[in-house]
Amino acid sequence: MSVPRFVGLDVGGTTMKAGVVDDTGQVLSSVSLPTEAHLGQEFGLRRMAETIREAVKAAGESWANIAAIGVATPGTMDIPAGIILDPPNLKPWRNVPVRQYIAETFRLPTAFQNDANAAAFGEYWCGAGKGVHSMVLFTLGTGVGGGIIIGDQVIEGEHSHGAELGHMKIEMTQPRQCGCGRWGCLEAYASATAVVRRTHEALHRAPGTSSLQRVLDERGELTARDVFDAAEAGDALADRIVEETTFYLAVGAVNMMHTIDPNMIVFGGGMIAAGETFLHRIRKHIQELAFPVPAAHTQVCFARLGSEAGFIGAAACGRQLYRRSQS
Amino acid sequence: MSVPRFVGLDVGGTTMKAGVVDDTGQVLSSVSLPTEAHLGQEFGLRRMAETIREAVKAAGESWANIAAIGVATPGTMDIPAGIILDPPNLKPWRNVPVRQYIAETFRLPTAFQNDANAAAFGEYWCGAGKGVHSMVLFTLGTGVGGGIIIGDQVIEGEHSHGAELGHMKIEMTQPRQCGCGRWGCLEAYASATAVVRRTHEALHRAPGTSSLQRVLDERGELTARDVFDAAEAGDALADRIVEETTFYLAVGAVNMMHTIDPNMIVFGGGMIAAGETFLHRIRKHIQELAFPVPAAHTQVCFARLGSEAGFIGAAACGRQLYRRSQS
Repeated sequence: MSVPRFVGLDVGGTTMKAGVVDDTGQVLSSVSLPTEAHLGQEFGLRRMAETIREAVKAAGESWANIAAIGVATPGTMDIPAGIILDPPNLKPWRNVPVRQYIAETFRLPTAFQNDANAAAFGEYWCGAGKGVHSMVLFTLGTGVGGGIIIGDQVIEGEHSHGAELGHMKIEMTQPRQCGCGRWGCLEAYASATAVVRRTHEALHRAPGTSSLQRVLDERGELTARDVFDAAEAGDALADRIVEETTFYLAVGAVNMMHTIDPNMIVFGGGMIAAGETFLHRIRKHIQELAFPVPAAHTQVCFARLGSEAGFIGAAACGRQLYRRSQS
Repeated sequence: MSVPRFVGLDVGGTTMKAGVVDDTGQVLSSVSLPTEAHLGQEFGLRRMAETIREAVKAAGESWANIAAIGVATPGTMDIPAGIILDPPNLKPWRNVPVRQYIAETFRLPTAFQNDANAAAFGEYWCGAGKGVHSMVLFTLGTGVGGGIIIGDQVIEGEHSHGAELGHMKIEMTQPRQCGCGRWGCLEAYASATAVVRRTHEALHRAPGTSSLQRVLDERGELTARDVFDAAEAGDALADRIVEETTFYLAVGAVNMMHTIDPNMIVFGGGMIAAGETFLHRIRKHIQELAFPVPAAHTQVCFARLGSEAGFIGAAACGRQLYRRSQS
């Protein structure tokens, strides 16, 4: 085919997103359908195929031009086998042979990857990391995920546990318990969930000192966004929570700078809506914590592809598979 | 040449070690000369060449069979440039063009690598990691160093700061100060120096409770070896220090298992003289701290090449350079 196109599919707990991209990463279509994991994995597989078909249709593209497909899913998974094992966010699915199903349905080369790894590969290909040799992505949402890319290679690990960046242990003396059940993980400090929990604790320790107390009283709950907004508006308690969060993220970043030593550290996910001040604070802490040479030369920035990073990266994995088969 | 040989040189603060190895990593000679860094870097470069010549001579090998040379040195360094920059262990050297000097002296392909990275590559080629796809080495001595190998590739980083494993930050609340001047680094907890410091602190807090107090009173100083020996002999205070040390090392190992996710974690360096009990304790903590899949499948073991790992690994880097030039 003269102009190869690639389809990427990003399977999430709530929605499946798919799109067609061209050989430069340009997005030609972007569609989404509800995942409805509760309807079971047979339904889920058919829904994946349906979302892919919708994406190709929306792009007005001939199937003859589709060179490969990439599918990204949350874990747990066996990446080389192409299987989702026991995904906490896709219950009650279990041992789902995603790659085989998609490859057989469309009779096309099909890549399979962890969703955060795929997002990192997307940013590396045509987002924040375009043109660099290596990059580490932290995704900041309900949890903290990540992806490590070195020279066009996704570091997926030998047991599909590469780049579980939220589960670096950064505290031993007073470790917080993480959603994973273990203690002292970065995610227990720096996820949106952790920001809200730490804010609740601070409000409890110093009642009546923060504008967030009124938000909490009125709405009965807080979001990380509330905390960032209050900090921006000058609330001292919120500001301290945000400041500490940027310190924790800097610790995570520096641990990658002292082990992977990439060209670039990228932060993505919902929490980067906190804005440039948030990024500046992370950078400031990195300067204090890192060795001088990586501190001076490692780029630290926000992701650029937003919620499309997953399917663009999945497509990039499909493209890589296709190109390797051509060379 | 029909049987290519490789020379590896490992430049240390006290001695330079060199040896000739064959294409399977078999050591054909092993020599050492004092570094005498204080005599200056011009002397140092000549001493490197002299050590290499001695190694070839000791192997009874013809120079015509030497296919490549590899040189490993401590940092700080610019690996792609082949230069030692400002090495704390080789004062007063500064900006020493090692690779160029050796390549021009011997007119042979010459590789240059960080010493801990080289040791890791040596273990990967023909030591503990022989046959695995990926491996992380922790070297436990005065400091904590390391190397990361993934699929025949040394992760040296974009700014020659890859695998500075001793400078992962593992503690925020009560961080110890590290020899690097920063806080909370693994090395500040788990190096031989840190073991001795933590023992001194424990003796100070609980005077008269440990057999180590007598050793200290008699000799005026303690070594990490004293602490491990006392623990082995049943001293409770020493046992607690050793137990905590294995916990810290397990934290370091797990952080690599959740980011690199290698086939194998290897511990090397002088401190592994502590023996199998030490290794068992590290493994036990890893089982508690890591995700189930990497906990079940990641091999955790001691290095096998001892103090020859550095020059064998340097030779392996030379061999890699040679093989790439042949393919």
